[in-house]
Amino acid sequence: MKRTVQEIADVVGGLVLGDGTRVVSAPAPFEAATADQIVYAGDAGYLKRLAETGASTVLVPEDPGPTDKTLIVVANPRVAFVQVMEFFSPAKAVTHTVSPQASIGERVTFGGPVEIGPCVVVGHGVTLGKGCRLLPGVVVGDDVSLGDDVIVKSNVTIGPGCILGNRVIINAGTVIGGDGYGFAPEGRAYRKIPHTGIVQIDDDVEIGSLNAIDRATSGRTWIKRGVKTDNLVHVAHNVEVGEDTLLVAQVGIAGSATVGDHVIIAGKAGISGHLTVGNNTIVGPAAGVVKSLGEGEVVSGTPAMPHKLWLRLMAMMPKLPELKRTVSHLEKRIERLESRE
Amino acid sequence: MKRTVQEIADVVGGLVLGDGTRVVSAPAPFEAATADQIVYAGDAGYLKRLAETGASTVLVPEDPGPTDKTLIVVANPRVAFVQVMEFFSPAKAVTHTVSPQASIGERVTFGGPVEIGPCVVVGHGVTLGKGCRLLPGVVVGDDVSLGDDVIVKSNVTIGPGCILGNRVIINAGTVIGGDGYGFAPEGRAYRKIPHTGIVQIDDDVEIGSLNAIDRATSGRTWIKRGVKTDNLVHVAHNVEVGEDTLLVAQVGIAGSATVGDHVIIAGKAGISGHLTVGNNTIVGPAAGVVKSLGEGEVVSGTPAMPHKLWLRLMAMMPKLPELKRTVSHLEKRIERLESRE
Amino acid sequence: MKRTVQEIADVVGGLVLGDGTRVVSAPAPFEAATADQIVYAGDAGYLKRLAETGASTVLVPEDPGPTDKTLIVVANPRVAFVQVMEFFSPAKAVTHTVSPQASIGERVTFGGPVEIGPCVVVGHGVTLGKGCRLLPGVVVGDDVSLGDDVIVKSNVTIGPGCILGNRVIINAGTVIGGDGYGFAPEGRAYRKIPHTGIVQIDDDVEIGSLNAIDRATSGRTWIKRGVKTDNLVHVAHNVEVGEDTLLVAQVGIAGSATVGDHVIIAGKAGISGHLTVGNNTIVGPAAGVVKSLGEGEVVSGTPAMPHKLWLRLMAMMPKLPELKRTVSHLEKRIERLESRE
Repeated sequence: MKRTVQEIADVVGGLVLGDGTRVVSAPAPFEAATADQIVYAGDAGYLKRLAETGASTVLVPEDPGPTDKTLIVVANPRVAFVQVMEFFSPAKAVTHTVSPQASIGERVTFGGPVEIGPCVVVGHGVTLGKGCRLLPGVVVGDDVSLGDDVIVKSNVTIGPGCILGNRVIINAGTVIGGDGYGFAPEGRAYRKIPHTGIVQIDDDVEIGSLNAIDRATSGRTWIKRGVKTDNLVHVAHNVEVGEDTLLVAQVGIAGSATVGDHVIIAGKAGISGHLTVGNNTIVGPAAGVVKSLGEGEVVSGTPAMPHKLWLRLMAMMPKLPELKRTVSHLEKRIERLESRE
Repeated sequence: MKRTVQEIADVVGGLVLGDGTRVVSAPAPFEAATADQIVYAGDAGYLKRLAETGASTVLVPEDPGPTDKTLIVVANPRVAFVQVMEFFSPAKAVTHTVSPQASIGERVTFGGPVEIGPCVVVGHGVTLGKGCRLLPGVVVGDDVSLGDDVIVKSNVTIGPGCILGNRVIINAGTVIGGDGYGFAPEGRAYRKIPHTGIVQIDDDVEIGSLNAIDRATSGRTWIKRGVKTDNLVHVAHNVEVGEDTLLVAQVGIAGSATVGDHVIIAGKAGISGHLTVGNNTIVGPAAGVVKSLGEGEVVSGTPAMPHKLWLRLMAMMPKLPELKRTVSHLEKRIERLESRE
Repeated sequence: MKRTVQEIADVVGGLVLGDGTRVVSAPAPFEAATADQIVYAGDAGYLKRLAETGASTVLVPEDPGPTDKTLIVVANPRVAFVQVMEFFSPAKAVTHTVSPQASIGERVTFGGPVEIGPCVVVGHGVTLGKGCRLLPGVVVGDDVSLGDDVIVKSNVTIGPGCILGNRVIINAGTVIGGDGYGFAPEGRAYRKIPHTGIVQIDDDVEIGSLNAIDRATSGRTWIKRGVKTDNLVHVAHNVEVGEDTLLVAQVGIAGSATVGDHVIIAGKAGISGHLTVGNNTIVGPAAGVVKSLGEGEVVSGTPAMPHKLWLRLMAMMPKLPELKRTVSHLEKRIERLESRE
């Protein structure tokens, strides 16, 4: 695929400095590019090292002065680079294809062309927006509603009644809408509490592979616009996750917790049930959050504490045996002093 | 759906105080109910606040005295409430349905009507009890035996030879009977040890979504009656989990560990291999159990320690930097005292 | 099945001491064997207790002197025992079987007989080596290449373009080649970075159940020869895992980390992104590795520290409250000494 620098600049809304007719064949990493490729210089450090890339076309945030490279000036070179990647690998238009080896229930409605692979099972009363793609092995329960341009990858299960917005991506093997973990003690045994709620996932959410997002006891478990989850994430019944929040791999969120907007919960961290995590808060890797957190906090450790305190503690830990020895030694010196009285 | 208070009382085995002919339309949460609904007052706190619910019918553990509500007195209002939920949303009777898009092996026997969805694959020599439901995408290996009224949700895999009791529920995406993680070192490489054992799951067990429960090297991995697991739980080869034990989300139990009856292992906790955890013990969230535990213990932390000690430790942790400063300061005061001698 | 001692000795390359014509019916555990079975004595301890097993045939590493057992002397009795297990349960030869309920794309090539189960979906341009077995419910994306004798268990998803070597085993429910977790911040939202790389898995690797191994942003995520992973393991984009390395259950490895050869990462441990872990290093259970590790290290804890230091720390932890009391007490004694001046 060949594109001119000017064509690329038009796609990313940038300004060409140099020869707009130059031909570019592909995006590439800064360190490994050849002359016909395009790279990006994301910050001042890269801007100073423009001579080091083999590419002759570079996305830059500002004019760095004299150079033999052709430049495209954009506000956010990294995002522009992603746009260039998309430009060179455009998503295929979805043509209406329903595999004869798929099983489609009654009263299923399509908002336009959709793609349904072999061994997909779609229940009764399902609504699919235009451009939806259900990859092989997907199971969609009765009365599920999917917005436009939703991609559901292989072997995903979406339980009955769940609602997904537009442009949602569900990676392979994930389970949306399993029953929540709720049981009423009855003597020493436990009686299953029926889970009549749903999972609602809003626009532009991407769910990783092998996530388990449980349906609500009643009402909804709610994943809001722009959330991105990594692999093997657990979200319990009645949890709410705010807009543009990131849940990194192997995170677990217990029942009825409410996580704010634009939060980052790092890998393997856990959030206890019924807590609130405020907007813009960052929870460190493997942290255990057992009390609610306010807005804009940065916490680490178990139980979660301010990140700076945790750093100090972690630096101290290896020195604790020494501290103990110091104390024993001080005790002896005091004994000696006391014996002199 | 409309039921009289007396009909409901009959179902839950309760005593009506007030008008048994009053009509109820649905169960609802205490705080959000309307006049035609039924709620439950689980403890003395709720009993005092009966006037605050909009419902006119309430399940109660005892007569609270004068009220304008219609009451049903039962031993356990929470369990009775679950029974009411079931009464208003009865499970559909299973009618014998085998999808033409399912693949059924040879010598498969049905104990009565069963429901087998599209894209289900049942191996040879499988036994299904009456009322079993295999949802779309389930794969059942050769010679598996399922009891009555078992529900296996979509995209679950049950490996060859495994045995499930009655009323077992397996949530979506789970793998029962994968090979255990056993290898014999052979120089620097590892040689796979054949796993010829099975997984046995007894009556009334519910397994969450995306669990991995490995088959035994020989003999059985054994999940006993009434166990309930949450999502993303790992149970290794030859593990035994006792009756009515709870394994919360993301728990991992290593090979050949034995967990007693009525144990609670909280989210993200791990149990090392070949250990024993006694009956009625509680393991806290993210705890790491590296030594066997007795009966009725309550432990937290890594390595797991008595919960009360752990609480004290956790309270101390943020104060450790201060302790270190105190010790340094004491050292200087002692030096001064010593120099005065 | 009946085999003579000499036939078994030929299979394991061992030397018979005693009657080579004796008939053996099965391998069995040392403690639970009957006269017609074969067991192994893996070390000096077992060699001394030969009289305690019911078996009359024992695999031994050396001649233990007078005994009424028939012995087979081999270099590595444990590995020989695994060979005996394989000898008594030989893998069935794969006969060419493609289920009519499978969906096979265009330009799919077979290197010899393969077995493709019902509800398997194979994309276009896929290459399968001889002896491959795709169990029911497997989905293989376009242009995937599998070597010889690969076993892919039920409900596994292998994304487009991934490459698997010979004798690879993928346990059920696993996802190979999901999109990596990479997003470019765009204001407060995140824009998906296209993932155009692949996953490459080399010869003799076994991947556990429900693993998520993400494709590279570009280039490859690379699992090298002989790696064995347990269940529910997460491997992020662009990670490299060296030969004969073990990843135990619920381990997580963040993006672009490089793990060396013959490393052991114990259950629930986490490796941060962009780190290096040297050859032959051991990472303890639930450890959090946040800095690169050299060769042959043994680390535990979070942040990971030398295992011996961690043991000392863990022994100290329960005594910290006492240390604090000691310090308070010393403070008072110093105050008293100071007041005497």
